Amino acid sequence: MNIKKILKELTLEEKASLCSGADFWHTKAIERLAIPQIMVSDGPHGLRKNAEDSSNPQEAIKAVCFPSATALACSFDRNLLNAMGKALGEECQAEKVSVILGPGCNIKRSPLCGRNFEYFSEDPYLATEMAAAQIKGVQSKGVGTSLKHFAANNQETRRMTVNERIDERTLREIYLAAFEGAVKQASPWTIMCSYNRINGYHSAQNKWLLTDVLRNDWGYDGLVMSDWGAVDDRVAGIKAGLDLEMPASFGKNDKLIVDAVNSGKLSMEALDKCVERVLKLVDKAEESRTPTEWDMEAHHELAAKIAEQCAVLLKNDDDILPLSKEDKICFIGEFADKPRYQGGGSSHINSFKVTSALEAAKKFCKVEYAQGYITYEDKTDPKLLEQAVECAKYNDKVVIFAGLPDSFESEGFDRSHMRMPECQLELIREVSKVNKNIVVVLHNGAPIELPFFDDIKGLLEVYLGGQAIGKATCDLLFGEAVPSGKLAESWCMKLEDNPSYLNFPGVGDELNYREGIFVGYRYYDKKKMEVRFPFGYGLSYTTFEYSDLVISENEISDDKTLTVSCNITNTGSRAGMEIVQLYVSDKESSVARPVKELKGFEKVSLRPGETKKVFFSLDKRAFAYYETAINDWFVEYGEFEIMIGASSRDIRLSGSVYVNSEARLPVQFTFNSTVGDVLSCSEGRDVFGGFIEKICRGMFDISGSGIGMDMAMAMIRESPLRCLITYDSRPEINRIWLQEMLDKLNGMLEG
Amino acid sequence: MNIKKILKELTLEEKASLCSGADFWHTKAIERLAIPQIMVSDGPHGLRKNAEDSSNPQEAIKAVCFPSATALACSFDRNLLNAMGKALGEECQAEKVSVILGPGCNIKRSPLCGRNFEYFSEDPYLATEMAAAQIKGVQSKGVGTSLKHFAANNQETRRMTVNERIDERTLREIYLAAFEGAVKQASPWTIMCSYNRINGYHSAQNKWLLTDVLRNDWGYDGLVMSDWGAVDDRVAGIKAGLDLEMPASFGKNDKLIVDAVNSGKLSMEALDKCVERVLKLVDKAEESRTPTEWDMEAHHELAAKIAEQCAVLLKNDDDILPLSKEDKICFIGEFADKPRYQGGGSSHINSFKVTSALEAAKKFCKVEYAQGYITYEDKTDPKLLEQAVECAKYNDKVVIFAGLPDSFESEGFDRSHMRMPECQLELIREVSKVNKNIVVVLHNGAPIELPFFDDIKGLLEVYLGGQAIGKATCDLLFGEAVPSGKLAESWCMKLEDNPSYLNFPGVGDELNYREGIFVGYRYYDKKKMEVRFPFGYGLSYTTFEYSDLVISENEISDDKTLTVSCNITNTGSRAGMEIVQLYVSDKESSVARPVKELKGFEKVSLRPGETKKVFFSLDKRAFAYYETAINDWFVEYGEFEIMIGASSRDIRLSGSVYVNSEARLPVQFTFNSTVGDVLSCSEGRDVFGGFIEKICRGMFDISGSGIGMDMAMAMIRESPLRCLITYDSRPEINRIWLQEMLDKLNGMLEG
Repeated sequence: MNIKKILKELTLEEKASLCSGADFWHTKAIERLAIPQIMVSDGPHGLRKNAEDSSNPQEAIKAVCFPSATALACSFDRNLLNAMGKALGEECQAEKVSVILGPGCNIKRSPLCGRNFEYFSEDPYLATEMAAAQIKGVQSKGVGTSLKHFAANNQETRRMTVNERIDERTLREIYLAAFEGAVKQASPWTIMCSYNRINGYHSAQNKWLLTDVLRNDWGYDGLVMSDWGAVDDRVAGIKAGLDLEMPASFGKNDKLIVDAVNSGKLSMEALDKCVERVLKLVDKAEESRTPTEWDMEAHHELAAKIAEQCAVLLKNDDDILPLSKEDKICFIGEFADKPRYQGGGSSHINSFKVTSALEAAKKFCKVEYAQGYITYEDKTDPKLLEQAVECAKYNDKVVIFAGLPDSFESEGFDRSHMRMPECQLELIREVSKVNKNIVVVLHNGAPIELPFFDDIKGLLEVYLGGQAIGKATCDLLFGEAVPSGKLAESWCMKLEDNPSYLNFPGVGDELNYREGIFVGYRYYDKKKMEVRFPFGYGLSYTTFEYSDLVISENEISDDKTLTVSCNITNTGSRAGMEIVQLYVSDKESSVARPVKELKGFEKVSLRPGETKKVFFSLDKRAFAYYETAINDWFVEYGEFEIMIGASSRDIRLSGSVYVNSEARLPVQFTFNSTVGDVLSCSEGRDVFGGFIEKICRGMFDISGSGIGMDMAMAMIRESPLRCLITYDSRPEINRIWLQEMLDKLNGMLEG
Repeated sequence: MNIKKILKELTLEEKASLCSGADFWHTKAIERLAIPQIMVSDGPHGLRKNAEDSSNPQEAIKAVCFPSATALACSFDRNLLNAMGKALGEECQAEKVSVILGPGCNIKRSPLCGRNFEYFSEDPYLATEMAAAQIKGVQSKGVGTSLKHFAANNQETRRMTVNERIDERTLREIYLAAFEGAVKQASPWTIMCSYNRINGYHSAQNKWLLTDVLRNDWGYDGLVMSDWGAVDDRVAGIKAGLDLEMPASFGKNDKLIVDAVNSGKLSMEALDKCVERVLKLVDKAEESRTPTEWDMEAHHELAAKIAEQCAVLLKNDDDILPLSKEDKICFIGEFADKPRYQGGGSSHINSFKVTSALEAAKKFCKVEYAQGYITYEDKTDPKLLEQAVECAKYNDKVVIFAGLPDSFESEGFDRSHMRMPECQLELIREVSKVNKNIVVVLHNGAPIELPFFDDIKGLLEVYLGGQAIGKATCDLLFGEAVPSGKLAESWCMKLEDNPSYLNFPGVGDELNYREGIFVGYRYYDKKKMEVRFPFGYGLSYTTFEYSDLVISENEISDDKTLTVSCNITNTGSRAGMEIVQLYVSDKESSVARPVKELKGFEKVSLRPGETKKVFFSLDKRAFAYYETAINDWFVEYGEFEIMIGASSRDIRLSGSVYVNSEARLPVQFTFNSTVGDVLSCSEGRDVFGGFIEKICRGMFDISGSGIGMDMAMAMIRESPLRCLITYDSRPEINRIWLQEMLDKLNGMLEG
């Protein structure tokens, strides 16, 4: 496609028309110029392509539902996400879908967000790595992705109108960072803007977000589309860099674009930029078409394999797991038979088949089953309860499949609490009275409160694990596979503990992210709070030892890369995989910083007794915070601790490095700069030192005012320079004098 | 004094000169017009008048040091504060001091604030009542007060330059409320503005604060003076309503005022307003002069009486207190001999005598004494430690006098932690190994962490209790008096629990009060956190029963007053006093509100077996929050719970009332108003109802997009009105149509 040529030939009306969809799932074609249309389809953990042009889920084609993002991130496994991406890419190629919508890399601000199951983590580094790996996988098959929802779509409540007040440092370090990382690493073909407003601006018309940050700062050269219905002011959107509105606007917004160009309110250049990016996408999609076939059953097996590596073993007292085939075992709970394996909303997949745990268990041994509870409403069925208790009585071990039913979490609404259905809690309470050997398997999209935690011996979190979750679960329960997932989010003890609690979901459309950068473990660690499970936590059937930490340098400049390595040994008797985590901590900082931040991880597979060396590379960003004074990342000189841990609260090895930087923060002194600040730099001492010393001596001699020497010193250090004028009785010591002194000093600092 | 006439006769230079002090403690006299000078002196819990014009504390006249505000508030006793105010007023009259600087009613945002000991509480209602009572007492003697530091001087760190970002609701409900209450109740002659900036403006030139809020909203007609050295831009200060700069500026700022008037930058009217208020104050002070004598010893006795009612008994396991004269008792700790009874800084009193506990104990029985630790540095003296442990061994009961030495807290700097000196902790640890009958008496200005809490039986908090604290302490320890104080602040378990922890003391000069209204118990209750001691907590030697709650109405309109009463019975065997607290809770609110807020308290004195009825009156403010949409206090219709408690976490009685209001919040709908919001009002249903219903039906029929009915409903309700345009394919449904519909609806709402 000769895009430059086409751009010249397109009429204004045609250009405007290309800036929105033809219908729910297609871009517009222009036959006159042989511009084809391309199709996009929902993802991100399976292909939801609608048969014909319908968007009715019953009419979506049969496909494979992989684990949702909330589970995927617990694998901490880039290769696994890449493999899933490749499988999705194959399906899209086979179905002639050019762009699969996703992945979503929004940060989990609150456990209540109804769409958390579609997001990876509370940590931007982990979210970056997961999203980038998935994008690379999909795009390696010539199919595009749409990284979403850019940005800060962290709740469903009033998601289309809410105005989020978020300070820039928090945006850069937390809510934009995963997008930044994924864009830079994996260049997604498209990005989907979010519904919400940030600091007053809808994302669909936020020039700062879509152009200044995304394109200018990060160098993104792909297309930005709107979330479905996110467009407020289409003309403002073109100016801001929103290339494609989805879905169709029945030509209404196209007309506004035409009118705006004709009236001079919108430049043709701005429109051309958007059109060019639409054409580039269409061209790329067409160029990448490859006849492809895919094997449903093979992808089902892949889904099982992935799910197995996502599950997190959270408790295993008395080594109740793995189960033995010789045990008398019963499965209780409807989810054993009908697993909840995906979330509700746009990502809902029409699975071609589903493997339940009850079915998968057959290959191991006979298990009894009792339904235990119902899911269509939260009400105890006394008969089901009684059956379950009876069943639990005469079995050795009980596995209760529990969690959140669809009605408790979905796209479109947020939870109002973190509780499980009361009927399930009652079931667990009653069963635990008759059997002490209880394992709970949880199906849910986000953390829940666990009042029964002390009454059970085993806890396996499988989240929403995709259509093959039953197989993965049984392989883990019976020890054919070894749990290796770790939590990609902190589990707080109770909802009120969450950092967003006082500011979620906002008042009307006003919402202030007052917790700032202190999201997830960054908050719990800083506030030294007890949590149910820390970020990065997960057990195995084997054990690992950490040793031989090597940090390549004692001191490094921030334009260099630091290498860190350590040895991991499988000290147990089973093969297993360990997720080794690297955290960095700034030992002393002039700004508030988290106690530690994840800056590296590796998943290693080890036979019993085997040792492997793990390597990490740390660059400037591993040590930097976002400094708004220079609109850039900044490393403050000093000591940083490098911590290697099995979780965020289980640090096994640590060492330190001094990091240097050429960068300096700009300093300009004013009437209200404190004496202490001025005296802390040599130029300030040169200009003001003698004068201030004289003033101080005078003050001690004459005034006093009931203060001790220490306090007087503190008072003077904290006095603004303007006070010098009234501390000195001479008339020539006045505002003009002070301004001259300041000009001199500021001149020295600039020069 | 004929102020109108004088104003006409004053030259511009004379007017300007009246707007700042003559020296450290006096206003300026103008002999030509017989304008005298008046003197102000530091307070607020004692008179610190400097001999001659010195401000050297060694040269302050001998006076009486009463308990500091942090202790006073624990009395919850308006009469007591009033009595102290009267005593201070007498001293001022006798010493020809016209205004005593104080009280300070800043809210305790962080336990680390170095000046907390000069402030009353974390709760604005309690701070209001205490400040107003004290002001009324002082002013009843013809002496003025200076309510300080207006406003939000909540830390010492960078107090003269810090810029505090505080949203208006938080200011109105928390940081301004105590000033408002005290101004309205007690009309302090003067108000002292604070050093800090609020939302960009120094208080000394903050027109919103000094004129819009203080004078226009609250009706204040007194004088505003600057804190010493708080003036940044004097001319801006005149415009803002800062009448008097303190101390002298050597005429430098007077000249700026003259220049500004001459150049037209400052109006003579603005200057005249300030001058008039200065003259009024001088006139009032002169008119109020009364020859007065005062009795030092009587005031010392009063100080003891007050201190006795301020002490808070925090633990009394096994009824270890009161001590018996028959017990073998030892006092350990330097504070037994040399009590820390006041804080450092401008409020430091030159006490004419000090009664230590060691001295006061003599009238009860012989007590042994060991110094135990030193206070001039935090270092264990092994010999003192050994003596103390030996002493503890062969006595029945040990009273350890501990707390914070001067170097740990003072005006001028904030604490960096909440710990006691390690040498004192070691002492307590070692003593507790040899004697289980330990009572700790604490001398400190703010909460501290108590790692030894489980190792002791008794804990008596006397804060900084004034020069007679030793007498009060012994009377309480030996049961001659019964403890009756309750905590005026929450004690958190550890510093990190405090709501300001992540945002204290700010980064450079930037500080964001991100916890908003959730200060003190408002935070701990909302977050359901464990605390060491809740707000309002305190034990007695007797017990009280609460009964017979009567709420005068089931439903009330917010312009009426609700009466609440209950009975309190002394069910123990000793006479005692109980502080009965009334909290109000909004059961359901559209804005974030605290779980409960203190809205009334009464202290009742009861003989054994005696019952008294306690009455409370609640007006609109007891139920309202500050609504920025109407710039006023607003009561949202609904049910409010009325709770009567012995502490904020020991609610004994509760009932409820429905509160109605005539006030309505203004509603105006826009393109980005949600469908749900529009449909929630009848006008909206009239205008948009039919159309939206049609759209909805259409959406369900044709689109779907994989969503269930529930989610589709939720999506549409949360859709902004602008989406209707693209939900309907007809060309006439466009932005012009929507604007017309909105104009119609908004017209109906206005009309």
